[in-house]
Parts: sequence; C-alpha cells; structure tokens
Amino acid sequence: MNELELIEKIKTLLPSNEYVVAGAGDDCAVIKTDSPDLWLLFKTDAVVEGIHFTHDAPPEKVGHKALGRCISDIAAMGGKPTVALVTIGLPSKFSFEFVQSVYSGMGNLARKYNIAIAGGETTTCPERIIISISLLGTVEREKCVFRTGAKAGDAIFVTGELGGSIEGKHLEFEPRINEANWLVRNFKPSAMIDISDGLATDLRHITTEQGLGAELLASAIPVSKAAKIRAHLSSTAKPALTAALTDGEDFELLFTISPSSAVKLLDEWKKQFPDIKLSCIGKVLPDKVFKIRTKNGIFDITEHGYIHFQ
Amino acid sequence: MNELELIEKIKTLLPSNEYVVAGAGDDCAVIKTDSPDLWLLFKTDAVVEGIHFTHDAPPEKVGHKALGRCISDIAAMGGKPTVALVTIGLPSKFSFEFVQSVYSGMGNLARKYNIAIAGGETTTCPERIIISISLLGTVEREKCVFRTGAKAGDAIFVTGELGGSIEGKHLEFEPRINEANWLVRNFKPSAMIDISDGLATDLRHITTEQGLGAELLASAIPVSKAAKIRAHLSSTAKPALTAALTDGEDFELLFTISPSSAVKLLDEWKKQFPDIKLSCIGKVLPDKVFKIRTKNGIFDITEHGYIHFQ
Repeated sequence: MNELELIEKIKTLLPSNEYVVAGAGDDCAVIKTDSPDLWLLFKTDAVVEGIHFTHDAPPEKVGHKALGRCISDIAAMGGKPTVALVTIGLPSKFSFEFVQSVYSGMGNLARKYNIAIAGGETTTCPERIIISISLLGTVEREKCVFRTGAKAGDAIFVTGELGGSIEGKHLEFEPRINEANWLVRNFKPSAMIDISDGLATDLRHITTEQGLGAELLASAIPVSKAAKIRAHLSSTAKPALTAALTDGEDFELLFTISPSSAVKLLDEWKKQFPDIKLSCIGKVLPDKVFKIRTKNGIFDITEHGYIHFQ
Repeated sequence: MNELELIEKIKTLLPSNEYVVAGAGDDCAVIKTDSPDLWLLFKTDAVVEGIHFTHDAPPEKVGHKALGRCISDIAAMGGKPTVALVTIGLPSKFSFEFVQSVYSGMGNLARKYNIAIAGGETTTCPERIIISISLLGTVEREKCVFRTGAKAGDAIFVTGELGGSIEGKHLEFEPRINEANWLVRNFKPSAMIDISDGLATDLRHITTEQGLGAELLASAIPVSKAAKIRAHLSSTAKPALTAALTDGEDFELLFTISPSSAVKLLDEWKKQFPDIKLSCIGKVLPDKVFKIRTKNGIFDITEHGYIHFQ
C-alpha cells in the first residue's frame, strides 16, 4: 500500500466536528472561529534527515525548509501564518550548534513574516533528526481558496520556475505568502495549491475531484535553469520539461482563474512583483484528461512525465 | 547538554508576536483570538517507538496515548480540545493493520471528547514509528490556569494515583479533561500542570519560577497499586513512595488552590467524581525548598526521590 492509498483509507476513520470547515485533503485544515468572517488555518508537516534533507545539509537551511513548507501551505489557501510550534526529535548525542542553527534558520524565516514560534517539544529519535512543524494561520472567509473551485475553461497559472529543485531551491525557496495574499485580494483564484509533489501531480489535486482535467502548453511552462543544466549535464537526468512537470518541492503557487481575468492579472502582477515570473500555462478541461501541446504534437501527461497521446 | 538545558537555550532564539499570550514554558501555548474572552490553546507532542511505546505495544493504545498526552495538556490549562492533526512517520514496509489500529485508538478517544482529527501527514521514518500530534483547544480567558499562579500557603492537590504507570497506565490513562473543566468552573486552581515528568519534577514546574517550594505529607500521597506491587515483587524496583514521587507519565492533574477552599473542594469533588481520587498532599512554601514529612522525619525531595533533610 502506498502513501496515497493509506491516506484514503485512514480518512474514513477520522472523526469530525462542528469546528471543521475542511479537513484532510486540502493544503491546510480550515477551522471555524467565533468570528463568522475569520477562519483558522492549521497545518502540520515534518522533515526527516535522509529523506527531506541530507546529513550534511546546512542546518539553517534545514530549519528554513521545515517552516517554509508549512508557510507555503498557508499561502496556498490565501491565509496569513501566525504561530508555529516545533517538535524536534534528536539522537541522544546531538550537536547543540546544529540544533541552534536549525532554530536560527526557522527563526529568521518566522521573523520575516511575523510568525511566533511559541514553543514545542524536543524528543529522542536515535537514528536521525526529525522536525515536525505545526503552523496556525488566519484567513478571511471570503479570501480562502480551496483546491476544489476550478471550472472548465479557467486559465492555469504558476509562479516562479519549475524543476530541478533538488539542486538547492528545496532548501532555500521563499514561500509565496506575499504573492498569495496579493492574489486573493486582487484576483482571487478559483483553486490554488502549492507545488510540492510536482506540477503533473498537483495539477490533478485541483481538478480530478471535480471531474476536470487540463491542457498545458509546453512552451509556456517556466522550466528552471537548474532543470535545464541537470538535463544538459547528464544523459540519465530527466529532460528539462519532464523535470518541470514532475519534480517535487518547488513550492510555487499553482492556481486557476477565470480566463477573463488572465491578461489583467499578468499586467498587474508585473507591476507588483517584477522579479517573480508568473506564467499562464494552460487551461482547465471539462473532462478528466491531462494533455500537453508541444511542437511535436499533443501528449498525455502522466504523473511521471508525458507519453504519446492515445 | 540535556533536554532542559537545550530548551532554555533555544527559547531565547524564538520570535514572538502580538498573538502570543504564553509561549514555551507552560503546558500549551496560549494564543489570542478575535474574541477578547476566548483564547486558543495550541500543543504538539510526539511519541516514538522504542522510547514512548515498545514495538509490541497494542497499536490502539499507542494511538490513545499519542492523542491522550496532548489532551492532558489542554486539560491542565482548563481548556477544551477541539481539533487535532496527526503526523505519522512510518518505515517503508509498514503494516496497514497496525496503522489503522493506531488511528482507530486515536479516533475513539477523539470521539469521546468531540475532537476532530482534521488531517495531517504521513512521512517516512525508516527505523521506527513516530507519531506527532498537534492539538488545538479553546479556553475562556477567565478560566485559563497557568503554571505560574501558585502562592505560598496554597494547598497542593493531585488527582488519581501515582507511580508505576509503566505497568500499563501510560498507554491507557484517561486524560482528566472533564475533571479539569469542572475544577476551573467551580474551584479555579491558582496553578495547574499534568504530571508527565513525575510529581517531584512537575511540582517544581509550578513553584520554582516564583521562588516557591513545597512540603508534602508522605501519608497523603496516593501511591498506586502498580507502584506497590512493583516494589513488592522486586528488590531492585523503586520503593513505592519513591515511584509515586518520581515516575513519569501518570497524566494526573497536579494543582494548587487557596487553603480556604480545600475542604469544600474535597466534599464537592466526591459528589461529582465519586470514582476518582482527589488528594490534598501538602502545601506551597514561601522558599524554594522541597520537603516531605514521613513517619521517620522530614526529608528533602529531589527529582530522583527523597534524601535525609540537611
């Protein structure tokens, strides 16, 4: 059984209650507050040594990544992060300097977005360091963007560039919190997600539940320099476009919006965020099919790349 | 460097903000909401295979313990738990039945107290299972009990019985949420904590920061049957009273209250919770000393037991 099958089975066992607006299945859990116009966002995420970071990764960046992943999920719902707790599992012989640097990396990112780190816990994990973050945020009810609102015909956008994150971006990425907050105030997306599993997979996360699909334009996909260099240097590396479609941990925003807003959005974005790319990469289809239009024809997008259109 | 020294150092690195009423150092973080009369409680806690539960522990009980520990912390502040998230780290070859049973144990406890489990995450932890819980709760501002409110002369109370939790209670304990909620409504404690590190240690957590200490009466301490049996069966086991003072994971409430309320509290408690022991075990002292009065004289309480009074 893989992780997704496990999650599907587990979801049926989980109790809900009157506080929950949205539970498992979106970027964050959404929780009611006493104010009808304000919801809480609630997210947990863990990074594990040897899985999400190597033993020799700079500890500040490990801390940055651990917290940044959660901030990225709050961003993807249009929210504002407020308070984090940190659980860190350490071997019994840990280096204080290492741990201090992890917290320093987290602390710097937290300060940048006025997030408090209000405690947490240390525990023992003999073989490897594990950092589990819980993050709270708030979102105005009217600004909250779920994964489920896309409509056939919507334009599909992505921020930044994709692919090759393993070269360094996965430890250094900037969570798109300012951009997401601007978006929900000015061009509220119909659906939004942060790209953690790869474009081809996360695109499915904002379409298939509604029976929708997507058509992408290969030439519009913002392939990162890192993905291009990797493809160039090694014959066994993924082709750059495949990397942009399937590599994980880019933590860019992927969202859909009414096509009538697309041009105005691109114009306004350029003024607002001149240094961050925004690309319209395709459109939402009314059926559960995923295609990519290239100069060599139309192909099916799989979660591992693209194959000749059947 | 041990865990406590690490935490003291780390605390200085953590950013705060306008939302935080209380951060690291109490049972839960306390967070402001839009309603001035209502605070959020926010807690994370992890259990690790081989540390907090053995490989052969019944998985339902592992789930019960993982969530129960967090509920106990919400209880210790007078709050009501509302929504949990669960992060579980699993070896790549996990047993679905095991994981299902863990969630089933958590789910049963959650339902009992109307707690939603609104998602979370699964991740890979190759060598051992780790379960990290995040739990939100609410507390009326006027009912919130911190660790820091004890006064010299206050009576010290403890619920249930102490010691020998390793015999089974650490996996099966009932978090004292109903009892704590009744207490804060009817006899609001001046300070409260749940006993996770052992009476002798947790007593310090609610006194030393204010420069206070405590005197306990040995005959009043509710020593569990499990602690007595362990002491009886093995000459290398702790004496039963030492176990009651120093064993961890009892998850009983330890609290202080004005001595003028003590008798009335005991009377009302018996009517309200006839099956749960409540014991007045001593009083708060104005100086940072910890003593226990036994039939053989007065001894100093250390975090590891008690030694002859100097």
